[in-house]
Amino acid sequence: MASLYNSGADRAARRAAVLANHLVQADQLATGSLLLASNCLHYNPPELTNPASFNPIHLRQILDGHHLEARDWMFKLMEESPLFCPKCRWEGKVFVAPDYNATKEQQREMTMRRIEFLLNNGVFEGWLTDSSAEATMRKFALKECIGIFDHSLGTKLAVHFILWGSAIKFFGTKIHHDKWLRDTEKYKVLGSFSMTELGHGSNVRGVETIATYDSNKREFIINTPCESAQKYWIGGAANHATHTVVFSQLHINGKNEGVHAFIVQIRDSIGNICPNIRIADCGHKIGLNGVDNGRIWFDNVRIPRENLLNSVADVLPDGQYVSSIKDPDQRFAAFLSPLTAGRVNITAMAVYISKVALAIATRYALSRRAFSVIPNGPEVLLLDYHSHQHRLIPLLAKVYICALSCASNFLKTLYIQRTPESSKALHVYSSALKATATWQNMITLQECREACGGQGLKTENRIGILKGEFDVQSTFEGDNNILMQQVSKALLAEYVAVQIKQKHFKGLGLEHMNGPAPVIPPVLTSSILRNAKFQTDIFSLRERDLFQRFSEEVFRYQAQGESKEKALLLSYQLAEELARAFAERTTLQIFLEAETSVLQAPLKEVLGLLRSMYAMTCIDEVASFLRYGYLSVDNAAVVRKEVMALCTDLRPHALTIVSSFGIPDSFLSPIAFDWIEANSWSNLSSE
Amino acid sequence: MASLYNSGADRAARRAAVLANHLVQADQLATGSLLLASNCLHYNPPELTNPASFNPIHLRQILDGHHLEARDWMFKLMEESPLFCPKCRWEGKVFVAPDYNATKEQQREMTMRRIEFLLNNGVFEGWLTDSSAEATMRKFALKECIGIFDHSLGTKLAVHFILWGSAIKFFGTKIHHDKWLRDTEKYKVLGSFSMTELGHGSNVRGVETIATYDSNKREFIINTPCESAQKYWIGGAANHATHTVVFSQLHINGKNEGVHAFIVQIRDSIGNICPNIRIADCGHKIGLNGVDNGRIWFDNVRIPRENLLNSVADVLPDGQYVSSIKDPDQRFAAFLSPLTAGRVNITAMAVYISKVALAIATRYALSRRAFSVIPNGPEVLLLDYHSHQHRLIPLLAKVYICALSCASNFLKTLYIQRTPESSKALHVYSSALKATATWQNMITLQECREACGGQGLKTENRIGILKGEFDVQSTFEGDNNILMQQVSKALLAEYVAVQIKQKHFKGLGLEHMNGPAPVIPPVLTSSILRNAKFQTDIFSLRERDLFQRFSEEVFRYQAQGESKEKALLLSYQLAEELARAFAERTTLQIFLEAETSVLQAPLKEVLGLLRSMYAMTCIDEVASFLRYGYLSVDNAAVVRKEVMALCTDLRPHALTIVSSFGIPDSFLSPIAFDWIEANSWSNLSSE
Repeated sequence: MASLYNSGADRAARRAAVLANHLVQADQLATGSLLLASNCLHYNPPELTNPASFNPIHLRQILDGHHLEARDWMFKLMEESPLFCPKCRWEGKVFVAPDYNATKEQQREMTMRRIEFLLNNGVFEGWLTDSSAEATMRKFALKECIGIFDHSLGTKLAVHFILWGSAIKFFGTKIHHDKWLRDTEKYKVLGSFSMTELGHGSNVRGVETIATYDSNKREFIINTPCESAQKYWIGGAANHATHTVVFSQLHINGKNEGVHAFIVQIRDSIGNICPNIRIADCGHKIGLNGVDNGRIWFDNVRIPRENLLNSVADVLPDGQYVSSIKDPDQRFAAFLSPLTAGRVNITAMAVYISKVALAIATRYALSRRAFSVIPNGPEVLLLDYHSHQHRLIPLLAKVYICALSCASNFLKTLYIQRTPESSKALHVYSSALKATATWQNMITLQECREACGGQGLKTENRIGILKGEFDVQSTFEGDNNILMQQVSKALLAEYVAVQIKQKHFKGLGLEHMNGPAPVIPPVLTSSILRNAKFQTDIFSLRERDLFQRFSEEVFRYQAQGESKEKALLLSYQLAEELARAFAERTTLQIFLEAETSVLQAPLKEVLGLLRSMYAMTCIDEVASFLRYGYLSVDNAAVVRKEVMALCTDLRPHALTIVSSFGIPDSFLSPIAFDWIEANSWSNLSSE
Repeated sequence: MASLYNSGADRAARRAAVLANHLVQADQLATGSLLLASNCLHYNPPELTNPASFNPIHLRQILDGHHLEARDWMFKLMEESPLFCPKCRWEGKVFVAPDYNATKEQQREMTMRRIEFLLNNGVFEGWLTDSSAEATMRKFALKECIGIFDHSLGTKLAVHFILWGSAIKFFGTKIHHDKWLRDTEKYKVLGSFSMTELGHGSNVRGVETIATYDSNKREFIINTPCESAQKYWIGGAANHATHTVVFSQLHINGKNEGVHAFIVQIRDSIGNICPNIRIADCGHKIGLNGVDNGRIWFDNVRIPRENLLNSVADVLPDGQYVSSIKDPDQRFAAFLSPLTAGRVNITAMAVYISKVALAIATRYALSRRAFSVIPNGPEVLLLDYHSHQHRLIPLLAKVYICALSCASNFLKTLYIQRTPESSKALHVYSSALKATATWQNMITLQECREACGGQGLKTENRIGILKGEFDVQSTFEGDNNILMQQVSKALLAEYVAVQIKQKHFKGLGLEHMNGPAPVIPPVLTSSILRNAKFQTDIFSLRERDLFQRFSEEVFRYQAQGESKEKALLLSYQLAEELARAFAERTTLQIFLEAETSVLQAPLKEVLGLLRSMYAMTCIDEVASFLRYGYLSVDNAAVVRKEVMALCTDLRPHALTIVSSFGIPDSFLSPIAFDWIEANSWSNLSSE
């Protein structure tokens, strides 16, 4: 990405000189003379032998989707600050990265100092006080860049702005906005979000903290009645937060009105813990040690009545409970829906981290050689092994296609344009895509780590450490398994509604279910397999059939006397497959819309290859298509061979594809570039 | 495992008191009165509601296979030393674990102090000087226990004893044994093993370090000719090692005789780096930070002629090169085969770490509740959700069955009884099982981590940190992908030999290929699926068919003019599937032999369930059985349902199964026990 990012003339000149130095070697290599002349390996920049067939900037525009300039500004701001630990590893080559050989205490301290720096540079301006779509999208873009540097930094910001900030904004009313939003944006208060407890994570409705109203003093009393009710994992609580939003059962006159949110101050302005608050550390973790997760006990803490965040429900001074939403289930749902922003951010982040790993692993595979195929012949580039192509290129295609649904505009726009009517669709999409993208990210990181061998384990090479840092994504802000179950459950509800009302499917891309079932040609050829219509058809066919199978199974269990809940739980195998089918069909569909708008021939061709690779990989890597007969045994074999053929077709574009990810060189790692120079004795002091 | 390990009367009494305390609660819970009476969660020991249907000691004997008493002694030694950081988390509950919130420098220091402690307690006695089978098996057992505490400690010992020590023992001759073995065992020298270079890992034959013989001075000159030839990842090199075995091309009179091993001193007895040696650190890693991996450059270092490890080849004083093995390929193979011990140890370790994770995740799932199925009903134990059973119980079965082939006696005995004739079989088995066990371990750790939610990320709960610590296993001492390719290649060679010589298959368990192909019944029922004969048949059928398909594909490519090497590379998809088929059939077969020897009814029944779960999972989780028609679509559906049925059947035994793993409580983690008590405010100081 040097050509995109390091655009300064000085850098370009330095780079040209380095390339020229290597040209002679590459020339010798091509003729085989170098390997005979010397026993020594040389680094050959992959750019020399992998010319771009299209302009990576065009692809980047599609993938990043918005605010490319703001992103580059953000990257540069970090790159140029000593707080982001820039290290010049060899002439002209700087990398930024946190020091992970530091205790959690040191990492937390550094995270706060970086936040101060970003604050002073105006990064957060408008993050809470400007609600325009433009400002929201810009915030998403900047957060993504920050998260690429360090997940702790990104998460600490997310807790403050997205969890605490959104809670004030969406659960609160004008009185809260006026009092808190500007101060939050300026970091005059440091917010946190006390939802999870030791005993209750995903099941938020089961939290045991109790808020009781005292109408005499017009105060709420917040209490932690037992050890399992201690607030747990509260980001910011252990060291820095001054305030928190507490999720608590609201008891009014002996009646439990369900979970509500309250503002509680936990530290004074100089950092002393407030009276009747006890705080402990959550301890060392496998990642995110720059976030000070803590535990909080409330010992009958009294707060003013106004500290109830009252957008959905309120308690009048005399103790009367009022709410515009009568049904407690709906009240609870309305309460949580604005928090989807966190899930949108997590989903996009997962895609960006996959990009970082794939850019590094692909560049390494284009410069690292191992074994020779001809006796005494030159060693072969890793990416010229078919098996290595099969490890990386399908992942490249997956992250590419997923980027469109998860990280470009789709999910964010859906979030920004949400209405009460669209909240269910937003929940379903964000659940399915969050789970899919974060699981896929872990798979990608693991494969990339192994594809880089031991180098993948070195912290300076990022891939390995990203595994620990981002592992949390599969279970926080919605456990992936539970999210996927909710997707199937929501789809089933659609199905039932359509059956009962004898209407058509509308929304969630399910319109394809209204027509006749697509017909798959009996004999598949390469050209059929690469056809968008065929790919859409077979993905739709699978979704439609699993819909049918899943609902039939649930109804069968119900007919046998099981409750609906139990029937859903018993049908978990089909529920998982259906949710996956939904996520993959959605992803393909969103990509196709983007693809249609691209007109330049070379780029369009590569997009087609990526789309076909995505489709073939989705089909080939699970048993479902064979299991349910969407593919015959013969056709499955054709698909399998097509994955290999697509690897060959995409191989020449691999470098340009990762270049278009738009990650600056300095946010990648030494093995993505001249790893021999990076490890040379003369550059030792720079490590 | 309290009943097995903490056998002291005082501990038993303390435990009884804790149990009695909980009995009242459990009783209330059973009647539902507790949840109504109080909002607060209580920990209920899973022992109360999961009675053992068999004696876990009997299962442990099968699984550990040997030296149970020595293991318990080893565990106790560590548990009782302050160096192993025992922490009493609440009354009677101690956990040992390294402090991972420490810099690499601190972790390395602690690792050396622990080694000193083990040395002073006689743990290493005979590890190199006693070659009996008994001593070797004891060493394996003790190393496994040490590795359960910390992978850095285990690995640092493996480098010193298994890599450096075995190199002296097997590559060296009497002169080397006399000079080095006892001193190594006593840690008077600290060994290391310099094989890998920056530019060459798996492809050892390509190392660029050069040893030249100077017949005038009767010395070898070891030199690092270029940056890519720097020795890399050398455990012990960065801080502690005094000596190393250098793998180097041997140049005699201008001819390269291939890779040979030489002893070089790199530090003096007080730790100063020797002249003409340069050393640098490999830096921070995602795990194993207690191992000081380093890089070494040799600047024409002179060593006496006797420092060539000359069991396979020698250089006479006048410079004449002599070897009993003429073929350089065979010479190279003979050289590396004793190093299989490392692979055997890694394989066993992977299984033990899976056990740790599964014991923790299963016990947590038997005490953690989430959501209720009936409106306002009690929350349900995680392990009573079918989907959660499906996440953990197949993994339990897999680790169980794999333990027999990978960690009990099979592989170790094969290693100890190795002969030149059996070295190929040892290579094939150890490659297939090492790759399978280490990959499976990563899958297990990831699933267990997610199954524990956020708790899986806390270092004190072990599972998460073990992911980073053991990730290296899939690529060190043989990259898994390359090992699996070698397995298929070796199997192909068997196939060709049988075809050409018109003989029968003999060895590697391939005898089943000599008879007619097994016939799979057209309609499968639960009782057929659980039948050992059927399971063996379908695994054999798959292996046999893939054998055929793979060899046909390779021959077809060769017929099209591709070289044999290229043909193998092009057939990578079938090669992977065949290697997997071989590993799983082998594993099943070894388990069946062990199962036959068990006569006690309740235990035998559980073993049968575990075996069936293993077989059904192997079949259900890949597409191969459908892809190649070993199963019809209908029968695949029956298999899928059987996995669910087996989950239900094994659920009551889950606790006893993990108890039989033989991991002491103190080597598990707080969430495996009373995690509410562990997190209580009153126990804060003990964290």
